[in-house]
Formats: sequence, structure tokens, C-alpha cells
Amino acid sequence: MPIERIAILGTGLIGTSVGMALRRNGFTGTILGWDREVVQAAIALGREAITEIANDPETAAEQSDVVLLSGPVFSILEWLEQLAPILQPHQLVTDVGSVKRILCERAAGLYNQPGKAGFLPGHPMAGREVSGAANADDEIFRGAVWLFTECANDSGISPEARAKATEWRAWAQKFGSRTVDLDPVRHDELCAWVSHLPQFVSTALSALLEDTFPHDEELRAIGGRALREMTRLGASPYSMWRDIAHTNTEAVAATLLALEQRLTHLREHLKTAELRDEFEQANRFRLGGPRKP
Amino acid sequence: MPIERIAILGTGLIGTSVGMALRRNGFTGTILGWDREVVQAAIALGREAITEIANDPETAAEQSDVVLLSGPVFSILEWLEQLAPILQPHQLVTDVGSVKRILCERAAGLYNQPGKAGFLPGHPMAGREVSGAANADDEIFRGAVWLFTECANDSGISPEARAKATEWRAWAQKFGSRTVDLDPVRHDELCAWVSHLPQFVSTALSALLEDTFPHDEELRAIGGRALREMTRLGASPYSMWRDIAHTNTEAVAATLLALEQRLTHLREHLKTAELRDEFEQANRFRLGGPRKP
Repeated sequence: MPIERIAILGTGLIGTSVGMALRRNGFTGTILGWDREVVQAAIALGREAITEIANDPETAAEQSDVVLLSGPVFSILEWLEQLAPILQPHQLVTDVGSVKRILCERAAGLYNQPGKAGFLPGHPMAGREVSGAANADDEIFRGAVWLFTECANDSGISPEARAKATEWRAWAQKFGSRTVDLDPVRHDELCAWVSHLPQFVSTALSALLEDTFPHDEELRAIGGRALREMTRLGASPYSMWRDIAHTNTEAVAATLLALEQRLTHLREHLKTAELRDEFEQANRFRLGGPRKP
Repeated sequence: MPIERIAILGTGLIGTSVGMALRRNGFTGTILGWDREVVQAAIALGREAITEIANDPETAAEQSDVVLLSGPVFSILEWLEQLAPILQPHQLVTDVGSVKRILCERAAGLYNQPGKAGFLPGHPMAGREVSGAANADDEIFRGAVWLFTECANDSGISPEARAKATEWRAWAQKFGSRTVDLDPVRHDELCAWVSHLPQFVSTALSALLEDTFPHDEELRAIGGRALREMTRLGASPYSMWRDIAHTNTEAVAATLLALEQRLTHLREHLKTAELRDEFEQANRFRLGGPRKP
């Protein structure tokens, strides 16, 4: 039985982008959408990311083969607990949350056990510094990696839910993503480096510049590509990042401390040969694979 | 007398881009090119950025209306001293150096005085993380700001050199740049924030990642746009940035220290309401003007 009905809980930037990508890549079933802000669900409907606006998350979830949880980490945690008692073993829950260990811990015993629905934790490494359904983009997943972090002790997942998990992975690939499996703890550690640290550096730098040069139009005018890239994420919403800061605190703090120490080292060696070593080491670092420009 | 002969000393990324932009925007005169590495001058010739390869910088300069010094800051300092005795008052020297106070100090007495050539310090806020004539781009200046920092005590500049300075500014505008005048000290302070700090952060982060995850293909695979932007400049060459670190040390160190302290503050408040304040302040920061994507 292929997936015919999907519920998207949280039709913001990512939830709406998933709905649009499903349509664009040939999904012809029903997509029920729900959002705390009904206007987001309405925009998602207008963009044909969903086929219906659901009245409440529970009803949408009960009626669907797959339930996609798409929101800040704490909202995903709440949904996981709220939906567990009302879902059936043949149903699959998946998500797009930025932190994974806490989700797997919370799901233990509630999912992937006999009599319980399936849960496939997922995390597309795609996003923008702006939020909302209006900014959704059905191409946002192209060239990105879609991480999956299967939880331990998930042997009790039903064959039907497992088949839906396999099909969901195939959809991620149809969206243009490469799927990669990671252990949840390693996921959180790697994402602290590749995603969370860049966000907090950008926030700190943007806030610092706003404090230091509150009304300096010249500074803002001469900032070129380097500053634009380095401060782009400064526009990111607190609402999403608060949850990441609260749920991946230790890993994020470790990356920040390491970078602080590295910047201190560089500052103390601006005029010594150590600076050359630092540039040479930096020159060796290369990100992999082809990407969107 | 419009500018008819231009010497470009240093036909790397920026020097060659200037030559190409001159051609593209209708300059029909002679462009003599010289580079320490003759292969760079040959590539510039092949790309029609220059019309002739000069045998040495002095001869090229002597034969030109305008001499563009395009290289790391220390090479510009050397050229300024080397060329001062052999240039005539009707000639204009300009440059693209990333640091300006030291150039203005060095030029004092050598330029813009009766009997001396003119000097118009310039700095296009354009660049790439890769160097060399092969990476030059005649569109690199479009949407950028081209800074000029006229030196104090330059009242002795000849009318002919002054006219060439006016014409050179017009060329920068034809390349698509907006020209802005700044005091040299303020230039160096602002550029420490908008250009030098992003570079050193990117270098530190890239080197840190290379140290921490030397052979981790997963980290490199999952790195998305955020990490790509944050580490792009890690590929920048030491040869150029050494000179900036040596000639704008104090201003750069001040920006690094301020960012280190801000990161520490953020790290210590990952789970407090201060994080919200930091995001809200960062959200207020906006760079100006339309830019290349």
C-alpha cells in the first residue's frame, strides 16, 4: 500500500516546502495541513502544498498514512507524546527536527513497539533565514542531505510502518536530497558544528554590529559578500533556535568554546608565523559534493 | 586629456578584473600589464585584460597616464616608494589595497605635492576566495562599493592628475560600483569589521574543523549552505591576508576580541532569556542596498 494520505503538522517554511516538493514530484494523494497559525495553513493551501486544512492535529494524524511533524523541536516533542496514544501500528510518524537525541529518547516506548505507530526521525539539511509558508520552495531540498537517525530498540515497528519509512526515504530522494543515516547522538554533535555553530556565530556578529554601529549607514553600505554571508543567518527567528539551544546545549556550547579559543589564538598571532599555519590548515578544509550555488 | 594609457601592476584576480572591466565598458586605450609571475600577465593578456605585457613595473609606469597598483598591501607600499622618483606630476597612481592608513602615511611627501605625481587611494569592496588572473571577472565590481580615501595634505596635486582621478572614479562607476569617500583611519576600522573579521573568522572556523574532523566525510557531506558560507573564505590565500594582519593589526584585533566576548556571552546564556535579546538585536541588523546574489 503506497502512501496515500499525508498530514503535515506545521506548514511553515519546511512543512510547506515538503508539500510542494511532494506535488512537484508526482504525489497525487491527500495532504492534510495544520498549523498553529491558520494563515500559514491557508498560504500552504494557496500554494497547493496541501489539499485540505485540518481542524486539529489529532484528526489530521488519525486520518493519515504518514504524519510529518514540522516545527521547532519542542513542538515536535509535544506532538510525539500527544499522538502516540491515538495512532495505529500501520501509521508512520516522521519529522524534520534539528535535534535528534531528545526526540529518540522521548519516542522510546511510545513508537516502534508492538501495537504502536512507527517513528522515523528525519532532518533535511535545508533551510533559510526567513520563515513561513510564503517563503517555501519546492527546490529547497535539491542537493541537500536528508539525515535519518533511527532510534535504538525500534525492532517492534510494524511491517506496514517500515514500508512507509522506506517509501518516505524514496520521496526525500525524489526531492533531490541524498539520504544519510546517523546515530542520533552523532547527529546532534555534527549538526552543532555544521548548522548550530554557524547560526550562533551569525547571530552574535549581527547583534554585535547592531550594537557597535547602530545607525552607521556607511558600514551597512560597504559590507560586501563576506559580511552578507557571515550575517545572513542573523535574521533567523528566535522561536526556532531557542529550542535548539535548549535541547543541544552541551554540544553547541562545546563548539562555541572551541571557536572562541581559536579566535583568541589567531588574534594573538596576527603578526607571527602561526598565522600562516592557520591559513594553510584552513585552506585544507573542503566541503564535499555538488551543491546549489 | 582623457586617460589613454594605463599600467596595471599586479595582474591577479583584481588587477585582471579591472582590465577586463575597462575593456567591457569601452576603454580603447593601451593597458600595460605586469606581474611578478609572468604567467599571470600572460593569462591577463589572453583574457584581453591588458594589451601588452610590460618588462618591468618602472617602464610600464613611466609610459602611462594612470598606474594601478594591484597586489598585497606590502607590494603596494614598495611600488609607491619605488615609483615616486620616476613619475611626473601629470601622472596618477591609484591602487586597490585593502588597508589605507599606512598607504596614505607612506605616500605623504612622495605624492600629491608640487612636482610629484598624484595618488588616489582606492579600494573596491570586491574579491573572491580564489586568486589569480584565471579567476578574474569583469562583473566583480557590479553592485559593490569602491572606496576612496583621499590623503590629507594632497592640495599639491596637479590639475592634470586631479582630472585623471575624477576620470578614474567615473570608470569605477561604469564598472557598476558606487564610489564612497572615507577618511583612511575610518576606512581601516570599518574594513576590519566588514571584511577582515569575516575572513579571520572563516579561517579560524575552517582550520578548527580541519583539526577536529580531519577525515570525516560525513561532516563534509552534510554541511549545508550555512557552513558553506561561513567557511568559503577559509580558502583565501595567506599571501594577501598576511599583509592585512600586519598593517591593520590593532583594528582587526579589536574586532576579534569583541566577537570572542560576544560568543562567550551567548554561550553562557544558551538557556536564558538573554538569548532572545541577542536574536532580536541580530534581527535588527540589515545590510544596505541591492547586491549581486
